[in-house]
Amino acid sequence: MIRAAVYGYGNLGRGAVKALLAAKDFALTGVFTRRDPRAVAEGGLPFYPASEFDAFSGKTDVVLLCGGSQADLPHLTPLLAEKCHVVDSFDTHGAMAGHFAAVDQVAKKSGHLALIAAGWDPGLFSLARLYGEAIFPEAKAETFWGRGVSQGHSDALRHIEGVADAVEYTLPDEKALAAARAGRGVGLNEYKKHTRLCFIVAKAGADQQKIVKKIREMPHYFAGYQTEVNFITAEEMRKEHAAMPHGGRVICIGETGVGERQRIEYSLSLDSNPSFTGRVMVAFARALYRLSGSGTRGCLTVFDIPPALLSPLDGETLRQRLL
Amino acid sequence: MIRAAVYGYGNLGRGAVKALLAAKDFALTGVFTRRDPRAVAEGGLPFYPASEFDAFSGKTDVVLLCGGSQADLPHLTPLLAEKCHVVDSFDTHGAMAGHFAAVDQVAKKSGHLALIAAGWDPGLFSLARLYGEAIFPEAKAETFWGRGVSQGHSDALRHIEGVADAVEYTLPDEKALAAARAGRGVGLNEYKKHTRLCFIVAKAGADQQKIVKKIREMPHYFAGYQTEVNFITAEEMRKEHAAMPHGGRVICIGETGVGERQRIEYSLSLDSNPSFTGRVMVAFARALYRLSGSGTRGCLTVFDIPPALLSPLDGETLRQRLL
Repeated sequence: MIRAAVYGYGNLGRGAVKALLAAKDFALTGVFTRRDPRAVAEGGLPFYPASEFDAFSGKTDVVLLCGGSQADLPHLTPLLAEKCHVVDSFDTHGAMAGHFAAVDQVAKKSGHLALIAAGWDPGLFSLARLYGEAIFPEAKAETFWGRGVSQGHSDALRHIEGVADAVEYTLPDEKALAAARAGRGVGLNEYKKHTRLCFIVAKAGADQQKIVKKIREMPHYFAGYQTEVNFITAEEMRKEHAAMPHGGRVICIGETGVGERQRIEYSLSLDSNPSFTGRVMVAFARALYRLSGSGTRGCLTVFDIPPALLSPLDGETLRQRLL
Repeated sequence: MIRAAVYGYGNLGRGAVKALLAAKDFALTGVFTRRDPRAVAEGGLPFYPASEFDAFSGKTDVVLLCGGSQADLPHLTPLLAEKCHVVDSFDTHGAMAGHFAAVDQVAKKSGHLALIAAGWDPGLFSLARLYGEAIFPEAKAETFWGRGVSQGHSDALRHIEGVADAVEYTLPDEKALAAARAGRGVGLNEYKKHTRLCFIVAKAGADQQKIVKKIREMPHYFAGYQTEVNFITAEEMRKEHAAMPHGGRVICIGETGVGERQRIEYSLSLDSNPSFTGRVMVAFARALYRLSGSGTRGCLTVFDIPPALLSPLDGETLRQRLL
């Protein structure tokens, strides 16, 4: 049994715990939270205060770190990599090189393995882009997201004055998708690839037109995108928008002759983004644990992991059943 | 530059040569054929008789072996693995374990690396099944093929008395596909997952009804399947059925809660099956060449290859561009 802990118990932490409990080759050693463990006590899970992690690190083979990419992981992943093998799902693309370097330095020094950016994007979608472009080095894999809830965009909406609650769905633009599939995806305007659908619960007395204007003009998030804004009640929000579905697709088109087109498409359709990401983290934790016996040390990504190590099955069984 | 040879110059060999010529990090050292090299001389390619391969093996880092799985590879892959690193696209599933063992023994003894079953199925589809089932060990990935030309089924048709030429297209059954996507794919009757569409050029005076009966009753290939048979002229065959398109999809559905469904789907839509397979072989030849420096020896499969090794880009560039 691989002894695994979960550090952080938000949406992703819940997904990771569920995934560990479903994995027959893992034992859950602890769930570490910065909140009062008594306040989150659920289903007999072994909750502990995050401050007690040090005492457990010797009893844990690998920790699934489920913090936020902006506020938590930049300091927590190196911190935990000092103590044991660690998997995170860091997803701030622009800060990836720095995060990798910081984690790599600590892990090499402490003799541990760390695997960053283990989720679906980055993660499985990164792998789809890599396999596609390894086969067609002259091509560029195109990524489309949705239909799904973007936490970043939903948070941005919630910070607008007069907004009580909000959720944003990112949708792929059907025309852009068709163009990518037909091999005309390169050079598509990024703002035309996705549309944004917002559901807003306004505070009593808030100026709805002002909210709409603020949304449409918000740079990076909504300005330039085709954006639809709908006002709903708190009850509608609770009833119809509580789930966290997501997904998307990576499309890579190669040409091997005049008009001879080869299309690779990898797609995910997820009812629950955090539950799925938890599953992906567990599979990569399995691989990391196995690799830890090989002498490898430092920071890795999904690109470095031989796929066979992700499966609980042995090589012979894999070749017989899945090759 | 990686020095690579192609051994065998049928449809797949042509695809492999095209793929090597398109790869900037490869040099094509020779194309080895059992036919008279003068008879196949094309576009200034370095053709040699297969019997001369021994003299070239020292000048070649890796050979792409493009023979048939039934008649050629069982003896040729071990034979070539004695002389250099070798990639094949062996696809007889039932004989995989034996082929692996035979190649592994020779390669370990001679100090080479061999990678068998590098194509799309087996190959990329095997990887899709593995990634899916590693994330959802309790699930079973379902594979659908087509629309595409099955060489095995086309050959079977051509052996029927009275048939001058024939081609078979395998098509996924839309109802079965919808069931698999909805999470009801496990336990689907294998005969209901695909339909078979045959185009036959009959010999002059042949009994068409007898041909149709022979097809419908052919065990394993057509009996039990929904099979449509069409008779066409030799000219129609030449004009409309010369291409070798193929493709298909691997669908893996996991549940992470009651009614919480997560769908992973990997699909290929290929205008030319052999040209695409050639591309896949080149990517895995690149990985094999790189691995050869690490001291690993023996037989491997796509499951054993860290994805980063498939790409011509280095780790830092991969993380920056594709993670």
